[in-house]
Amino acid sequence: MSPWLLDGDPADSVPITDRGLHYGDGLFETIAVRDGAARFLDLHLRRLEGGLKRLGIPVPARGRLEAEVRQVIADCAHGAAKIIVTRGTGQRGYRPPPAPAPRRIVGVTPTAPAPRQHYSRGIELRLCHTPVSANPVTAGMKTLNRLEQVLARAEWSDPDVAEGLMLDVRGRVVSGTMTNIFVVRHDRLHTPPVHATGIAGIMRRVVLDQAGSIDLEARETHMTAADVGAAAELFVTNSQIGIWPVRRFEATCFAPGPWTNKLMQRLAAIGVIECAP
Amino acid sequence: MSPWLLDGDPADSVPITDRGLHYGDGLFETIAVRDGAARFLDLHLRRLEGGLKRLGIPVPARGRLEAEVRQVIADCAHGAAKIIVTRGTGQRGYRPPPAPAPRRIVGVTPTAPAPRQHYSRGIELRLCHTPVSANPVTAGMKTLNRLEQVLARAEWSDPDVAEGLMLDVRGRVVSGTMTNIFVVRHDRLHTPPVHATGIAGIMRRVVLDQAGSIDLEARETHMTAADVGAAAELFVTNSQIGIWPVRRFEATCFAPGPWTNKLMQRLAAIGVIECAP
Repeated sequence: MSPWLLDGDPADSVPITDRGLHYGDGLFETIAVRDGAARFLDLHLRRLEGGLKRLGIPVPARGRLEAEVRQVIADCAHGAAKIIVTRGTGQRGYRPPPAPAPRRIVGVTPTAPAPRQHYSRGIELRLCHTPVSANPVTAGMKTLNRLEQVLARAEWSDPDVAEGLMLDVRGRVVSGTMTNIFVVRHDRLHTPPVHATGIAGIMRRVVLDQAGSIDLEARETHMTAADVGAAAELFVTNSQIGIWPVRRFEATCFAPGPWTNKLMQRLAAIGVIECAP
Repeated sequence: MSPWLLDGDPADSVPITDRGLHYGDGLFETIAVRDGAARFLDLHLRRLEGGLKRLGIPVPARGRLEAEVRQVIADCAHGAAKIIVTRGTGQRGYRPPPAPAPRRIVGVTPTAPAPRQHYSRGIELRLCHTPVSANPVTAGMKTLNRLEQVLARAEWSDPDVAEGLMLDVRGRVVSGTMTNIFVVRHDRLHTPPVHATGIAGIMRRVVLDQAGSIDLEARETHMTAADVGAAAELFVTNSQIGIWPVRRFEATCFAPGPWTNKLMQRLAAIGVIECAP
């Protein structure tokens, strides 16, 4: 059976006229499936709904999406569920149809847990050449326009490098190709703002929310690659991985950091089990 | 019969796993069909091939794409043919598959000719709020990441306004939502460069090439919306329309211009028949 549902029905294809394909006219969510449950599903659906409103795409009923996610993950213990909502089919041209009929695409891919060393030792992070573009109109959203991330991820094939850092065209740090980035400096937690570019990640949100519970002040701060290299602690986040400490960024090495460890313990306590020591 | 071919076979859908849908990981071309022929097909295919090389997507054999375009337009006198090439299906995540099997999507939509007044009187152009992002890595290409253009085109529904002008985030003119823009000032032709953002349009290329034949010096020049308003002549171009003079941009009105008329006559002479008086 296909692991995908199209508007609630099993499907292995989408209409060739879909605006998601033609223009990237839609949004997606990637949700961690752990022990058969969709983690932080409520946060994902709220972000999706907020984004669809910004794009003027009608918001599917929440209960319907929840039911479709539950259906596709029924036989999946550990994986990545994906929800795509597109503006559906319209007439030729960029102009959105006056009454769009959005399409829901829901599926799941079983995944293996990330290597334990990614959590215990940390990962290697490289600096990507491909910049991220900035646009306040689409900033923060997980749109289907992800070609920049694809090109950045195509820059390396060394399996020892788990992630690449992307800058905007002015040289400011935005994020990893698939993660958000956090640095600790002077006992404060910093991550780049997402109002001009980047993605308002769910795990980014969770980390910012949890920082207070360990008395770690958190701020949105512009930073350069040099600032990242000068950090006391450095880690990346996303919904599938929780937190990966960074042990090396280009030529700079980092020891496991106490704040990162505390945050990982907090996350493990609220369900991000892969962050447990 | 479906007006679409997928990898050469009639199809009305694409695999739900296609990276064109998930990431906008591909390119497209929109080719004018006039009197049953695909206009400037060679220029379109050359641009497509150059873009696919930049993206690291294997280039389909030219003869195959030509044959597929001929097949879909066989019964179409006047329309818009479309070629999409995506990176096909890969494993989960942004990373491109090491040996991608690209997908070819070729179809045609019959169209009515644009209103004659668009050529004789000119069009109304508005200024869009939605900016265009800049990224040298994707600049110039007609990628499947077109959400900014969709959002800009969604800003107005007044049928008297045919096009909207888009600026980059720094306030510099980039293009229309679906056209390139040209201004004439002091008997020189100017259009914004496309190395940092924008699309290297086929009709833009043709106009730049033809300007010399009427002794009109052409330059790529950065400009602001105020520069556009201060132009002696103003017009927009794309493959489907040729040249549309602009008779009004926001509050500023323009009379039909001699250079624009000469360029339209040149274009008509080389096959852009809709530009004939």
